Amino acid sequence: MSKILIIGAGRSSSSLIDYFLSNAKSYSWHITIADSNKKSVESKISAYADVATAVEFDVNNVALREDLIKQSDFVISMLPAFMHGDVARDCVRLGKHIATASYVSQDMKDLDLEAKQKNLLLLNECGLDPGIDHASAMKVIHEIHEKGGKIISFKSFCGGLVAPESNDNPWGYKFSWNPRNVILAGQGTAQFIEEGKLKFIPYNRIYTQTETIEVEEYGKFDAYANRDSIGYKEPYGLNEAITMLRGTLRMPGYCKAWNVFVKLGLTDDSYKIKNANSLTYTDLIESFLPKGNGSVKEKLVAFMGTDMDAEVIVKLEYLELFSNKQIQLKEASPAELLQHLLEEKWLLKSGDKDMIVMQHQFEYELNGVHQKLNSSLVVIGDDEVHTAMAKTVGLPLAISIKNFLTGKFKLYGVQIPIVKEIYEPMLSELESMNIVFKEHHVS
Amino acid sequence: MSKILIIGAGRSSSSLIDYFLSNAKSYSWHITIADSNKKSVESKISAYADVATAVEFDVNNVALREDLIKQSDFVISMLPAFMHGDVARDCVRLGKHIATASYVSQDMKDLDLEAKQKNLLLLNECGLDPGIDHASAMKVIHEIHEKGGKIISFKSFCGGLVAPESNDNPWGYKFSWNPRNVILAGQGTAQFIEEGKLKFIPYNRIYTQTETIEVEEYGKFDAYANRDSIGYKEPYGLNEAITMLRGTLRMPGYCKAWNVFVKLGLTDDSYKIKNANSLTYTDLIESFLPKGNGSVKEKLVAFMGTDMDAEVIVKLEYLELFSNKQIQLKEASPAELLQHLLEEKWLLKSGDKDMIVMQHQFEYELNGVHQKLNSSLVVIGDDEVHTAMAKTVGLPLAISIKNFLTGKFKLYGVQIPIVKEIYEPMLSELESMNIVFKEHHVS
Repeated sequence: MSKILIIGAGRSSSSLIDYFLSNAKSYSWHITIADSNKKSVESKISAYADVATAVEFDVNNVALREDLIKQSDFVISMLPAFMHGDVARDCVRLGKHIATASYVSQDMKDLDLEAKQKNLLLLNECGLDPGIDHASAMKVIHEIHEKGGKIISFKSFCGGLVAPESNDNPWGYKFSWNPRNVILAGQGTAQFIEEGKLKFIPYNRIYTQTETIEVEEYGKFDAYANRDSIGYKEPYGLNEAITMLRGTLRMPGYCKAWNVFVKLGLTDDSYKIKNANSLTYTDLIESFLPKGNGSVKEKLVAFMGTDMDAEVIVKLEYLELFSNKQIQLKEASPAELLQHLLEEKWLLKSGDKDMIVMQHQFEYELNGVHQKLNSSLVVIGDDEVHTAMAKTVGLPLAISIKNFLTGKFKLYGVQIPIVKEIYEPMLSELESMNIVFKEHHVS
Repeated sequence: MSKILIIGAGRSSSSLIDYFLSNAKSYSWHITIADSNKKSVESKISAYADVATAVEFDVNNVALREDLIKQSDFVISMLPAFMHGDVARDCVRLGKHIATASYVSQDMKDLDLEAKQKNLLLLNECGLDPGIDHASAMKVIHEIHEKGGKIISFKSFCGGLVAPESNDNPWGYKFSWNPRNVILAGQGTAQFIEEGKLKFIPYNRIYTQTETIEVEEYGKFDAYANRDSIGYKEPYGLNEAITMLRGTLRMPGYCKAWNVFVKLGLTDDSYKIKNANSLTYTDLIESFLPKGNGSVKEKLVAFMGTDMDAEVIVKLEYLELFSNKQIQLKEASPAELLQHLLEEKWLLKSGDKDMIVMQHQFEYELNGVHQKLNSSLVVIGDDEVHTAMAKTVGLPLAISIKNFLTGKFKLYGVQIPIVKEIYEPMLSELESMNIVFKEHHVS
């Protein structure tokens, strides 16, 4: 009997929770789900009263957190990433395993040694991106290496988008995960390697220095460089590669339009605008524009110059940016004001389907021949709750925890799904759920 | 007998220390100067052995800090701004007054109530900018208000530059204060009010949306908007003003060239480049450039387009950016690598004089007449140690502390020099030291 604690039952947790509930009986698990909205959890688990319990969670209640962790064997933190540290410290101190879908943080690294000494697993980056990307890339990399091949270039792209059948707005985007992360995406400096040279793209250019990729049956996508690609060179065993890039996908045209917000300064989250509700969104745009003549729209067109075309204008007009729409929030950062507007405009409506697109591009030499291989994944959600995002974030995590609890792998300390013991059974179970990569040799 | 503790004897402290040493006897002060370089302090105070003591300071030694504060009556923190909070908390707990030249931080605001209850002074923003700018602006604002005038527009500019006689590099800039602050200047979003409207300029445009100001005898300067100008509207009593802007001055052409670094991403301090010393500065520039043809210089010219003219190229060439100069630091952020280079190129050499330029621009209505008044200050340093910067940062602070200790003003909690009791005696003593504003009616 394993006692599993899931903290956080938000947008991305639905498939993870379903997996644990439906498998609880067969594996003798008891599932405790802690969330700030206990009622909502109760309705989800009503059919599983014998194997699951809902508890109220309060991030500020340290004693409660400790108490819940103390009563568990394995803890899954689906909280926002910055909260994992506190949970993980409790886990290691109290001798519990922990898993998250988030990037390995400094907090996790600091706990690595103690966790190893105590035979505790700190599983991270085991969702979609990071997660499935690691697993599926490593599978191909290991296969090429085992054949004696040498990888020259590795590029990997991923995007959480909206399915073609539900794409009814000019941005081609709806929120299938934390909207705040979408608003702040790209802040900092992206780092990668291109033809043997270190490359950096700062935030002010990240949405302009894009490339176009193509996925069979689904067409073209914009891609922009994502965070630190260099850090994965060694863990991936790709010291031989002279190009290494991880990127984020958007529908064509999205990046050009989003760059208007970046250039204006609308994605800044570092200060609050007071009495924001005395302004309209049109006033807000104007407050970021230099002095000029004409309407706010005319001034914005003049300001953006050649970076503003008819398609960009359609996207901005869709957001009612030029029609004196009243701001609702009293005090908020520009990023929060933008998020509030977009949450209304980019809502995944009832029946809407989201779409996950991932593509790895390999260039390698095998037996003296230069070859190109693309490995692509497309997952379409069932509806606005059972999203492709929730499946691809939650299932790899759930499957891997099941595999650990059933002894399929015995690894401790900080782990990410780049080792065969973790990724092989994960990918094969995902395949059985129709989450399948298609390989395509490029000539 | 008052025991005064000065923590931090760096670049900006020389005039402050001189003031306290030379006045110690007449006012019965004992001066303790705590610095990480005790030897250097000892040499400065050798002529004042009866009134001054040097002690070794270690920012990580909490017990030492407490002990030093416990033995003092008044503490002056000349440490980097982010360290004031710890010192101030100790001071308030132990019942000591504290003064800094830095912006009022959240730490200080949090201590305000307790300090007022204990009759303790938390004097801040009492250097040059912030400091002399507040004092001199408030003098004119109060004068206009007392005559029954109404201020329509207030703009205030300040820059720490190099004196014309020592200006021997194409940037017209040398470091007279913390170089790190110069590299990171402008990061965030500037906020001001223009003709009744809220205005924002994000970092990516701060060095391009400049204006030109002119100071009699000294010619023209570039000005860019500085931080949050709006926050001073109420403290300055300027609720009537429809324009309010604080700006930073640089020599003409500086901003256009600095914008190259901003657009490249070279001022980012949020990540470290590993093995940086395997690169040259030319490699570093290239790593921020998109793919292209030709030399790094040619690629940079193509990248910057019309934002790159012959004068910008001269400035970049002066920094040896295209001549494969080796990077010395092993692991550093882009901002740190740039700083390391500029500290060599923009060094205030022996005998070099720096220059402080400040200008307030008022527009007001008095007796139905619209009037314009400029109030300008220029201070030239004596040499590379007794800089105009050290004088104008240290003397207002030293004078105001003396005025507090001698009972010229009795104010507690967080104070900045915007009230008559503080600014009047401060400005009149500064005048006696030849730090004098010239007023100039503009027709």
